[in-house]
Amino acid sequence: MTSIPAERRHLLDAPNFGTLGTIRPDDTVQVNPMWVDIDDETNTLRFTHTTYRGKFRNLQHNPSMSFAIIDPDTPHEYLEVRGKLIEVIPDPTGAFYVHLQNRYGNPSDVPPKDKADRVILVMSIEKAIAG
Amino acid sequence: MTSIPAERRHLLDAPNFGTLGTIRPDDTVQVNPMWVDIDDETNTLRFTHTTYRGKFRNLQHNPSMSFAIIDPDTPHEYLEVRGKLIEVIPDPTGAFYVHLQNRYGNPSDVPPKDKADRVILVMSIEKAIAG
Repeated sequence: MTSIPAERRHLLDAPNFGTLGTIRPDDTVQVNPMWVDIDDETNTLRFTHTTYRGKFRNLQHNPSMSFAIIDPDTPHEYLEVRGKLIEVIPDPTGAFYVHLQNRYGNPSDVPPKDKADRVILVMSIEKAIAG
Repeated sequence: MTSIPAERRHLLDAPNFGTLGTIRPDDTVQVNPMWVDIDDETNTLRFTHTTYRGKFRNLQHNPSMSFAIIDPDTPHEYLEVRGKLIEVIPDPTGAFYVHLQNRYGNPSDVPPKDKADRVILVMSIEKAIAG
């Protein structure tokens, strides 16, 4: 485990979209935009996802994850975090989804229609690169 | 080969940074910001890179590439392009680097110091997803 470089921490504190890389079962790569939050107590990144989407299947095959945020104000600066899926926490009420929805500017407390299948993907922070 | 969905083409026409996913030799994933341009004649994406960096080594091991651009104005919209490395073109004068440098807002015609090692990574467009 490692920590987020102080000079890029603001990229995680603000509600920036980042892109998550995962590896598909055929050993090709996939990159998708994701909401994110950092959990300081466990030093992990947390994403909302469902159990029936491609990324979830990818992570069952290969738990490797890499997440990058480009600084929207100075796009030649970025943060890349590498780690892996270490836990999947059921979110059947969609509460974590609502937390992220609020964090990213939508004040609605209405959970998503697919809440029964919602999970929290917990990613370890094994390497953090300030680029 | 496929084409870029018309409703996301503007993300490639403007000088947006995107993130490129590659697979490391140990089968973990890596995501890095990159400059890009599309070559319409060959329907490929083109990146500037050097032969001694991690991504180049990754691509020798596994040619899979995935490139995502998040719309800076409407960040819930994005383009993901999947393909693979199909050609490496030497760029020993750094001309393509300068082309991208100009495209991304720096008018300098000074090539990079590492121009001798510069190459153009040519990526096929095998799947393009308008998210």
